[in-house]
Amino acid sequence: MKAVTIVKIGGNVIDSPEALSAFLADFARLEGPKVIVHGGGKEATRLSAALGVETTMIDGRRVTDRDTLDIVTMVYAGLINKRIVAMLQSLGCNAIGLCGADGNVIPARRRKPEPVDYGYVGDIDPTRINAALISRLIEDGICPVFCAITHDKKGSLLNSNADSVASAVAVAVSSFAPSRLVFCFEKAGVLADVDDPDSVIPLITPANYATLRESGAISKGMIPKIDNAMLATRSGVESVTIKSSGALLADGGTTITA
Amino acid sequence: MKAVTIVKIGGNVIDSPEALSAFLADFARLEGPKVIVHGGGKEATRLSAALGVETTMIDGRRVTDRDTLDIVTMVYAGLINKRIVAMLQSLGCNAIGLCGADGNVIPARRRKPEPVDYGYVGDIDPTRINAALISRLIEDGICPVFCAITHDKKGSLLNSNADSVASAVAVAVSSFAPSRLVFCFEKAGVLADVDDPDSVIPLITPANYATLRESGAISKGMIPKIDNAMLATRSGVESVTIKSSGALLADGGTTITA
Repeated sequence: MKAVTIVKIGGNVIDSPEALSAFLADFARLEGPKVIVHGGGKEATRLSAALGVETTMIDGRRVTDRDTLDIVTMVYAGLINKRIVAMLQSLGCNAIGLCGADGNVIPARRRKPEPVDYGYVGDIDPTRINAALISRLIEDGICPVFCAITHDKKGSLLNSNADSVASAVAVAVSSFAPSRLVFCFEKAGVLADVDDPDSVIPLITPANYATLRESGAISKGMIPKIDNAMLATRSGVESVTIKSSGALLADGGTTITA
Repeated sequence: MKAVTIVKIGGNVIDSPEALSAFLADFARLEGPKVIVHGGGKEATRLSAALGVETTMIDGRRVTDRDTLDIVTMVYAGLINKRIVAMLQSLGCNAIGLCGADGNVIPARRRKPEPVDYGYVGDIDPTRINAALISRLIEDGICPVFCAITHDKKGSLLNSNADSVASAVAVAVSSFAPSRLVFCFEKAGVLADVDDPDSVIPLITPANYATLRESGAISKGMIPKIDNAMLATRSGVESVTIKSSGALLADGGTTITA
């Protein structure tokens, strides 16, 4: 099979109807088989507030009690996922929206409540992804659109991290096709100097990663993203690129290889 | 292909966790290829109220402005659909949840705003259903679970009637397999005397339908359901049965044939 591009989008695209619409127009034009994984954006926090459900974040992760699980399921698997699918259909891209319970495509394990009880939060094992279903859909010319809601196979949905879902899907894809993972975000790539948008680091490899971390060029929030990317490349993904969501079809960004 | 059973469930099952759980346990045991179509229940009305969005019903149909469309998309395509899928997965039934935009499986046409403007409400044409996708999923041993959110192929989701979705899916299935449609509701079947639960009419055909209507045995709310069922049988569906959601695996109920 031809190389498959897995594109992850986050809040900066999802929260802006204009940005989302521009991104999806680019995505629809992207050649070859492709997959979207989307995060949540601010809509879940807004809905929680409107319903009087408190939002608690620990280390950037949402503590997911039962009410919050219902809210993220509604927003991620319902509103955002189906909105993206309907827009892609209008652009001639035959998308299908999935959460991890659909076709048991992404089973997860509820995280242990120690040291922090995150509630209904699920961790993913890339080796347990249903690669056969993803392969079948792609072979049929269908573009899977994943949200980060997964399940425990015991009847409960779980809230997972969208970056982890993207990596796991890319690793699963690499079992049947060359797999390229693209993380879209608000900047042009990983910057050597956060105040200089032109300082994109074109390539990160295990060799220069340590130096970049020591120099402070790669800061707190970026470290788990790059660790995640490194792990994906070591697990079979051909390349991981971090770039601006506005520049999907352009060259540039930061590429990470093993 | 073996006969496919399409089961439609509505509010009485969806609104009760116990009833839903008992129904799905029965459904998972139902032999042969199968499909669920689910309605919405009261959750959308509750969420609308909590968010201060007014609910307007005209002739039993929900007027769907933009805010209401977001709400029904969240509740039907998100919360209820994924809850059902996760529960079926725990019962060993490999379900996949779909709205009409997914794989362009149920395109619809936005209803004309005259004489009543229902907003984002979509009417379905059974001949435009993507039967090939449904067939492919069933062949792969997957059980499709449909909510009644559809789309216009121009980027907008639409709110459709779940009974109509069930009929349209059953008609589409009849193009590749014998198709049996079951409407589950709170009573044991269509009753000759609404006050006598034992007065189930076992069979309705075009021959006795007129008489039953004239005698008043078939009342207002039931007429569109039976018209819908009659139309389905004339369009290729082998049989339509109306029965209690608690008696899915038992004989009984009212069967409608052409």
